[in-house]
Amino acid sequence: MTYCVAIHVDAGLVLVSDSRTNAGVDSISTHSKMRSYGIPGERQFIICCSGNLATTQGVFAQIERDIHERAARSLFTVTTVNEAAGYIGRLNRSEQEKTGGGAIFEANFLVGGEVLGATCRSYMVYPEGNFIESSNHVPYLQIGESKYGKPILDRVISMETPLDQAALCALVSMDGAMRSNVTVGPPIELLAYRAGSLQPGRYKRFEEDDDYLRLIKRSWNKEIKIAFARLPEIDWEANGAL
Amino acid sequence: MTYCVAIHVDAGLVLVSDSRTNAGVDSISTHSKMRSYGIPGERQFIICCSGNLATTQGVFAQIERDIHERAARSLFTVTTVNEAAGYIGRLNRSEQEKTGGGAIFEANFLVGGEVLGATCRSYMVYPEGNFIESSNHVPYLQIGESKYGKPILDRVISMETPLDQAALCALVSMDGAMRSNVTVGPPIELLAYRAGSLQPGRYKRFEEDDDYLRLIKRSWNKEIKIAFARLPEIDWEANGAL
Repeated sequence: MTYCVAIHVDAGLVLVSDSRTNAGVDSISTHSKMRSYGIPGERQFIICCSGNLATTQGVFAQIERDIHERAARSLFTVTTVNEAAGYIGRLNRSEQEKTGGGAIFEANFLVGGEVLGATCRSYMVYPEGNFIESSNHVPYLQIGESKYGKPILDRVISMETPLDQAALCALVSMDGAMRSNVTVGPPIELLAYRAGSLQPGRYKRFEEDDDYLRLIKRSWNKEIKIAFARLPEIDWEANGAL
Repeated sequence: MTYCVAIHVDAGLVLVSDSRTNAGVDSISTHSKMRSYGIPGERQFIICCSGNLATTQGVFAQIERDIHERAARSLFTVTTVNEAAGYIGRLNRSEQEKTGGGAIFEANFLVGGEVLGATCRSYMVYPEGNFIESSNHVPYLQIGESKYGKPILDRVISMETPLDQAALCALVSMDGAMRSNVTVGPPIELLAYRAGSLQPGRYKRFEEDDDYLRLIKRSWNKEIKIAFARLPEIDWEANGAL
């Protein structure tokens, strides 16, 4: 399994991904699920993936081949992030078609970025190649094991959230997913891109024994318990009969 | 969809259920998913259900018919909660078989209770009629839309949790599920049974506009934001290149 989030606020983008892959419980491994591609001052893209590892590696390999070979259509020629999402969607379909297709070969992608002259955007690309954009009302997209980490995003994230707060919220969301699903695990990769900068964002990789990751985990656990202890007690007064 | 939890701590049992049913987004309705059956001083059972409404109503009807007709095997004749779970499992299978079977006719049940001379127990009954018990390590069981409300249970509930705290945690868990999934909704039914009492527990039904339910919702939202604001800031110092 996998868990990745792309948060898109006014200040920019935050993407977070775990690194655990599994092909059965006796075949657990570690692969990075985040890539970034860019030309400083002109374009920046950050991509996260979930799903079949051969498919996602095939897509990343083709993205890099197209850049390297200066293909007519690549992440270095598209003029908007929307166009980049369509391009990744086509590569996604084409990788799956090589196997004959089927649910186990499917993959999903999160694509965030900005191109000079266009606006900062984020999209989720489906296995079928189509894609959706995050909205002002729900300014994040998730792929993989998304449910455990969703409530904190719903409570904290709005378009006005500062970039560092969004990055912290992404980590807390990831902590929830890791705690409740053993097939989501470190290293955790985190990238915060400031809208309009067109420079590679701030990036950090947290290993399993990372002091800050453990601090967040411990602090959040403690703070949640404090928050819970402050809730008003149940008023059983108006008891009814079942 | 549905969300129900049974928490089983040393002090007793807490069961919570929502009341929303849907057969497509244009066919949303409200049905109670909690029943209790008992003989004060001798036995108490609390049952929650998820899944096909015809199946669950059929099971409850048969439970009540067996009690009313003083059948050889009913909730009023079983000698343990384990036996009650097996009995409900057989009714569940038999209701599904009437339709010819299939995934859309499936139902799950949570059964908690106590019989004089045996211990307080809780079980989850599967559509196939088999069942599992909660454990000291994970002292709760969930059916329906379980993921959104799981992290808070994992963080707060242990065998030592007092009954009122467990009941409050069940409500907070339900709040998470309601917030993130529109097909989980009020009225919310909550029952707390004290182990060894063999009396009907404390019961409360929260309507959509219930003041306490709204207070919990607002308070929890506020407290989570306070908890989040108290987390240590991300240390981006050790930046790495992607």
